[in-house]
Amino acid sequence: MRALRDAVRTGRLAPGVRLPSSRALASDLGLARNTVADAYGELVAEGWLTARQGSGTRVARRAVFQEPAHEPPGGRPSPGSSGGPSGQRSGRSPGQPSRARMGVSVRSSSRPAHDLMPGSPDLASFPRAAWLSAARRALTAAPSDAFGYGDPAGRPELRHALADYLARARGVRAAPERIVVCAGFVQALMLLSRALSATGVGAVAVDSYGLDFHWDLIHRAGLRTVPLSKDEHGTRVEELDSARDVRAVLLTPAHHFPTGMPLSPDRRAAVVDWARRTGGLVLEDDYDGEFRYDRRPVGALQGLDPERVVHLGTTSKSLAPALRLGWMVLPGHLVGEVLAAKSAAERLIGALDQLTLAEFITCGAYDRHLRGMRLRYRRRRDQLVAALAERAPHIRVTGIAAGLHAVLELPPGTERSVVQGAAWQGLALEGLSRYRYAAATEADSDGPGMGDGMDVGKGDGSGGGEGGGMDDGLAGAGGSDGLVVGYGTPPDHAFAGAIDALCRVLP
Amino acid sequence: MRALRDAVRTGRLAPGVRLPSSRALASDLGLARNTVADAYGELVAEGWLTARQGSGTRVARRAVFQEPAHEPPGGRPSPGSSGGPSGQRSGRSPGQPSRARMGVSVRSSSRPAHDLMPGSPDLASFPRAAWLSAARRALTAAPSDAFGYGDPAGRPELRHALADYLARARGVRAAPERIVVCAGFVQALMLLSRALSATGVGAVAVDSYGLDFHWDLIHRAGLRTVPLSKDEHGTRVEELDSARDVRAVLLTPAHHFPTGMPLSPDRRAAVVDWARRTGGLVLEDDYDGEFRYDRRPVGALQGLDPERVVHLGTTSKSLAPALRLGWMVLPGHLVGEVLAAKSAAERLIGALDQLTLAEFITCGAYDRHLRGMRLRYRRRRDQLVAALAERAPHIRVTGIAAGLHAVLELPPGTERSVVQGAAWQGLALEGLSRYRYAAATEADSDGPGMGDGMDVGKGDGSGGGEGGGMDDGLAGAGGSDGLVVGYGTPPDHAFAGAIDALCRVLP
Repeated sequence: MRALRDAVRTGRLAPGVRLPSSRALASDLGLARNTVADAYGELVAEGWLTARQGSGTRVARRAVFQEPAHEPPGGRPSPGSSGGPSGQRSGRSPGQPSRARMGVSVRSSSRPAHDLMPGSPDLASFPRAAWLSAARRALTAAPSDAFGYGDPAGRPELRHALADYLARARGVRAAPERIVVCAGFVQALMLLSRALSATGVGAVAVDSYGLDFHWDLIHRAGLRTVPLSKDEHGTRVEELDSARDVRAVLLTPAHHFPTGMPLSPDRRAAVVDWARRTGGLVLEDDYDGEFRYDRRPVGALQGLDPERVVHLGTTSKSLAPALRLGWMVLPGHLVGEVLAAKSAAERLIGALDQLTLAEFITCGAYDRHLRGMRLRYRRRRDQLVAALAERAPHIRVTGIAAGLHAVLELPPGTERSVVQGAAWQGLALEGLSRYRYAAATEADSDGPGMGDGMDVGKGDGSGGGEGGGMDDGLAGAGGSDGLVVGYGTPPDHAFAGAIDALCRVLP
Repeated sequence: MRALRDAVRTGRLAPGVRLPSSRALASDLGLARNTVADAYGELVAEGWLTARQGSGTRVARRAVFQEPAHEPPGGRPSPGSSGGPSGQRSGRSPGQPSRARMGVSVRSSSRPAHDLMPGSPDLASFPRAAWLSAARRALTAAPSDAFGYGDPAGRPELRHALADYLARARGVRAAPERIVVCAGFVQALMLLSRALSATGVGAVAVDSYGLDFHWDLIHRAGLRTVPLSKDEHGTRVEELDSARDVRAVLLTPAHHFPTGMPLSPDRRAAVVDWARRTGGLVLEDDYDGEFRYDRRPVGALQGLDPERVVHLGTTSKSLAPALRLGWMVLPGHLVGEVLAAKSAAERLIGALDQLTLAEFITCGAYDRHLRGMRLRYRRRRDQLVAALAERAPHIRVTGIAAGLHAVLELPPGTERSVVQGAAWQGLALEGLSRYRYAAATEADSDGPGMGDGMDVGKGDGSGGGEGGGMDDGLAGAGGSDGLVVGYGTPPDHAFAGAIDALCRVLP
């Protein structure tokens, strides 16, 4: 227990963090419950922890070392705190520590008071005790050669566990030898883009709303992107037929990011049909497929045709972005090309977390964790909807009850000022126009703009003008001014305050 | 203990693997020693384990599932089981499992009976218990935001721990903000190559003996490589002066791979002097700097001029390749460029192993582990030298008493037949000519050759001919036919058998 004490004393455990119950911690550390309870008691008495009935034991609030905000490095400035589907939130690094010694909590002074940025799960809910106990079993049992250079496709234990899990939970038809484990979705998209480029594909269709760094990754592999417009049934996949050299399309069919709509059943069938007819490929980014609150999740598109759909998954929303674990389920004809692309770069990823995740899935802890998080996020979404209905009844929440974010429709022309106003009040959130394809590409050619580190949407906040046909879809669905609210992001104790701050800044 | 029992029963623990002592395991799992001892006893009684005085408790030998050998994927065939300094051993993946279910040991039927391939530490010695206990402390103490998307430079805890450690153990002058954590040496070299390319460097000098996939990585970033010849003082760095557009040089100064010689003090000074005079950069691959057996290790070259030398380290030899953890200590002027290159690719690596390694270093476990491994490898090297002196007295062992490999000089013209003969006897090892720059580049232009999956050296086994000036160095040091013997590779129990097999195949 000395480690816990040191962690709290030196500030490694952030204020407000809820500690596991003494029973849970004791059982995972193999200690008597009294030992843990005594240690907690001592730390409470010393003022390091607070214990309250119903809210558990938490790290007490106090001053922490302040660090200046992180300066983005040389290259392309980081495009604000984006981070939707299976993506990394850039520009949110905790800063380069200077004074901070090992164990000192490093926090940026520019950290917002309230964080509703989309793209992150509730990090305080990472199941540390269950993860450690899976790690203990996995590492104790691993064969020696698991510690060596391994298979670029990933550990066989994990590929088997994923094959079972994805079939059961997402309807994916996945043989282990079709699965390639990778360092999160970003590596998967990079490898796929390179593999497609190597097989002669020239362009990939994308949604007209999405994440600019996904498009960048595709471009960097030498491919063009072609945006597809949207309407209330989701992405207009029929436009694929007129985009002649497009041989692949990147979609988020279960829950579009950011607009929050699923792809309609007709369109699901149509896009698979297009792929069959043309020899094309659908890249299914299933970033939050486990989180559906109003019904059983829609099964993966991949189930319709495993030879024409690549299923892409990640633990970044279900567990933690810091794991950097994702996977692709590939058609047979792509496995060799993707592994070749992987062998030419960072071909291996850490085996220890792979073994641990395999055990975590196999022993049932992953299902348990997801059940718990589903309840938690569902409750948060309900709270958000209820608060808006009461305090801002003119604001409509669109998108299905799923995932970690909701879209709030704003009166035309108000988005930019709302996001800016929120920033002034210490509330971080994202405007919908930030994710517009046109906005991203305009900014790319304009030089300064998107890249200035501001989170303010650069698109036409006035909701019309140059976007032209690409906005028709959202105009049809109610206009293009909106907020993307990441209700998964804050820790539990900060959620009510964040919702309150949100209601205050709405027009 | 059920996990242990399952692991042994299902074959996840490979036959011959030595289990930790019941005392060590009990202490790490927080269990009573008797509990562990009882479980061991039961498994011994059931025939799953064997316990013998002096050799500890081991997994019993028995049939395991056999898998067909791994077919390399589409692209460039993997160049045999190379893997020297901070590099990945390609072509050694355990095969794509098909029948094997989670928990079934997957082994290739083509696995050699005796393995003296260079490039791997003793995987059976991975300090599982100490690592798990560091993981427990680190994860329990980590702030919540450690589970989110992080800083591309790596976790601050690890960069601080490395700064202290590298200063103390290797004489590196490393401020944490100059350290970038990356996924092993391979990612580091890739990022550095891209950063150099982006700053206008056109060519990098390399040793005339080294690893072809390092040269490939440099080429892929758009840079040329220029080989420097060698003599008994190490790499002829004076040749840098006549290679006009070379602005960087990749070296293994403490212990050249594969020839086993250090860079002489004069040459160390000369190469830093060259870098200062020309604005050049030395890339110091310190892959096995911790392992020196006859004296204190020579300090890192970086200590001579932190603004002109990039220090590159890895846990692949000191702990396990499967961790995929390495680091660069960068001159101030390169930090931005390297982070920009990292942000354009896999910018993040798993945080959990980073936090664990930080704790593992800080609590002293890393030093303890290295002390133990130093003793073990030293003993092995002594055994190798003694066996050769007795059974093959005409074979000279060259290179310093350091690292995980030794070079055995062979009579001119015998290398190819010795390596081939060893393969027939189930002994995997590598010929020196396999690492020749000329051999690699010839094979690249010839098409088939190196890439055929054979481990046989492709160079001029006859020790002369087209290599020209580049072989002068080794000719001066006693000829270019030789074996590179990785004495770190086998587990302890297999070492004597491997040495025996080696002595049998020597001419």
